[in-house]
Amino acid sequence: MNAHSLPPRSAALAPVIAIVGATGAVGIELIRVLEARQTPLSRLRLLASPRSAGRTLPFRGAEIEVEVLTEDSFAGCDIVFFSAGASISRNYAPLAVQAGAVVIDNSSAFRMDPTVPLIVPEANATALVPHAGIIANPNCVAAIATVALAPLHACWSIRRLSIVTYQSASGAGAAAMEELRAGTAAHLAGAPFTPQVLPHPYAFNIFSHNADVDPETGYNGEELKVVAETRRILNLPRLPIGITCVRVPVLRAHSMAISVRFEDHVTPDLVRARLASAPGVRLVDDRAANHFPMPSEATGTDDVLVGRIRTDLADPSGRTIAMFVAGDQLLKGAALNAVQIAEALGLGVAA
Amino acid sequence: MNAHSLPPRSAALAPVIAIVGATGAVGIELIRVLEARQTPLSRLRLLASPRSAGRTLPFRGAEIEVEVLTEDSFAGCDIVFFSAGASISRNYAPLAVQAGAVVIDNSSAFRMDPTVPLIVPEANATALVPHAGIIANPNCVAAIATVALAPLHACWSIRRLSIVTYQSASGAGAAAMEELRAGTAAHLAGAPFTPQVLPHPYAFNIFSHNADVDPETGYNGEELKVVAETRRILNLPRLPIGITCVRVPVLRAHSMAISVRFEDHVTPDLVRARLASAPGVRLVDDRAANHFPMPSEATGTDDVLVGRIRTDLADPSGRTIAMFVAGDQLLKGAALNAVQIAEALGLGVAA
Repeated sequence: MNAHSLPPRSAALAPVIAIVGATGAVGIELIRVLEARQTPLSRLRLLASPRSAGRTLPFRGAEIEVEVLTEDSFAGCDIVFFSAGASISRNYAPLAVQAGAVVIDNSSAFRMDPTVPLIVPEANATALVPHAGIIANPNCVAAIATVALAPLHACWSIRRLSIVTYQSASGAGAAAMEELRAGTAAHLAGAPFTPQVLPHPYAFNIFSHNADVDPETGYNGEELKVVAETRRILNLPRLPIGITCVRVPVLRAHSMAISVRFEDHVTPDLVRARLASAPGVRLVDDRAANHFPMPSEATGTDDVLVGRIRTDLADPSGRTIAMFVAGDQLLKGAALNAVQIAEALGLGVAA
Repeated sequence: MNAHSLPPRSAALAPVIAIVGATGAVGIELIRVLEARQTPLSRLRLLASPRSAGRTLPFRGAEIEVEVLTEDSFAGCDIVFFSAGASISRNYAPLAVQAGAVVIDNSSAFRMDPTVPLIVPEANATALVPHAGIIANPNCVAAIATVALAPLHACWSIRRLSIVTYQSASGAGAAAMEELRAGTAAHLAGAPFTPQVLPHPYAFNIFSHNADVDPETGYNGEELKVVAETRRILNLPRLPIGITCVRVPVLRAHSMAISVRFEDHVTPDLVRARLASAPGVRLVDDRAANHFPMPSEATGTDDVLVGRIRTDLADPSGRTIAMFVAGDQLLKGAALNAVQIAEALGLGVAA
């Protein structure tokens, strides 16, 4: 990628915003988030493949027609959200930057590019500048986890991390969500069902994440992303991170069991108090009611839910805290974080 | 519990076997396992609460009538399987022993009693004697995990353990399985559904295990059982064990991500080779096909499935191995293990 300086912008004019991949699960959610947050914009353009062109999608009481994505799509755009896979981002994001837009990319294409900031605003907003026109939106697990981890690291220095996930269908797209529904209905009816989107039966089943597995190390692509991106967001390039990514039959919120080893002894009460005032975090930690973070309550919620905060019994030194986290994969794990990046840039927010 | 010596038995006579809690999820499975393994027996008696009495259940082509459990139920019984909860076991198991039977108890009532062996035959069959008439069948997670862990400990000495579970509905009984099915059907139909058996919505949702949570430590009863029983089965009374128990919307097989720290450096290849010949284990570890242990394949299977064997990146010393395990909660986690205990006692097996 070439480096581009951001052209001067008029604070008085509301930006033109485009969404590439507007008809996908994250694209649809981006439209909803822009509507819900009343993001100032002078025009919203929806871009997608020829298959979806001509469809209309609702936004603020109007219907917006989906246009075909082409190399010339970006003239006049101020902000372009990309959510159509890494190869579309690699091919088209530089064109959007050349056309003068800032790109916020939800794919993995640029996340490890040292010239591209990888941002979770609650965790590392200060890393947003300098940028060269592209900002990367992290992997959903890394985004959700770092909302809870960054404030703890700032206080007590994280030295080791273990993450075991319970990931929803939405991370594999709208078709996977539909496959989970249809496969479950077939299972309940005793009818045969052959999965087309995911590699294994999903009804009442769990399976190791469907990303390709590295034959040497045994880690899958999702796990390697979580490790690399979590290290980058926390600015801990050599942090040891154990990781197991698993799909569970949940529609759209990811959960994870996280174990955090700090430099020194830390109590659950201190961690709870710190997280109670952390931006983007909602404590759900009611031991008496057995009420802890659940995907059913994270779904549709901007906050990352954190609870089950306790000393990890595997570490007799008392330096390790276990917790359980749930966040909406389509919101904090994707669309919401992307819009929050735009807000942190000062674009798309009322002057 | 009083100590009882086992009365002498005639090897020539097939035993009379009784099942307390015969109509429950585990009870039904016990009947199936006795049938599938062609366990020699001269009579099978089914005992349950008055609510279930008079029902008949099929066994080897006949229908056996369910009798009401009373204090006098055990006359003439050689082996009594208990699976009707801890308070029934506490009240009735000593009576069965007094009547001359050996009790194999699936509840938690006696598991931490030092006079009662807690047995997973593949892991600690040598601990079966001496006993005083009662043998305890472990918690399902501990039973499934130790099938994979015991052979590794014998080779390389386990020093630390972390277990994060994906537990099925069956561990909460047949009513919970039915609630998962009915709640999911309602969710797909867009109909309201109020859970009666479990404390949280189960359709397309996960939640922290429903056992009561210790207000001081934040660990729930299930987690404390897994820690205490795993230590006992492995004969490692002070082993540090990190544990997070979670219910996932799966019907009857439990899965778990296990991280094992050994005394010294161990390679994934060595662990894989050891597990390939371990009794009760089936390796499912195909990186190229992304095929690893899944509850859908563990269901109805005697073996514990083990795979995703890899070095845990959280431990730079190379002494920690991560793996993923799945086992049928009703079989190895309950009924099968109970029948295998009877077989290890030499009772219920052809002379």
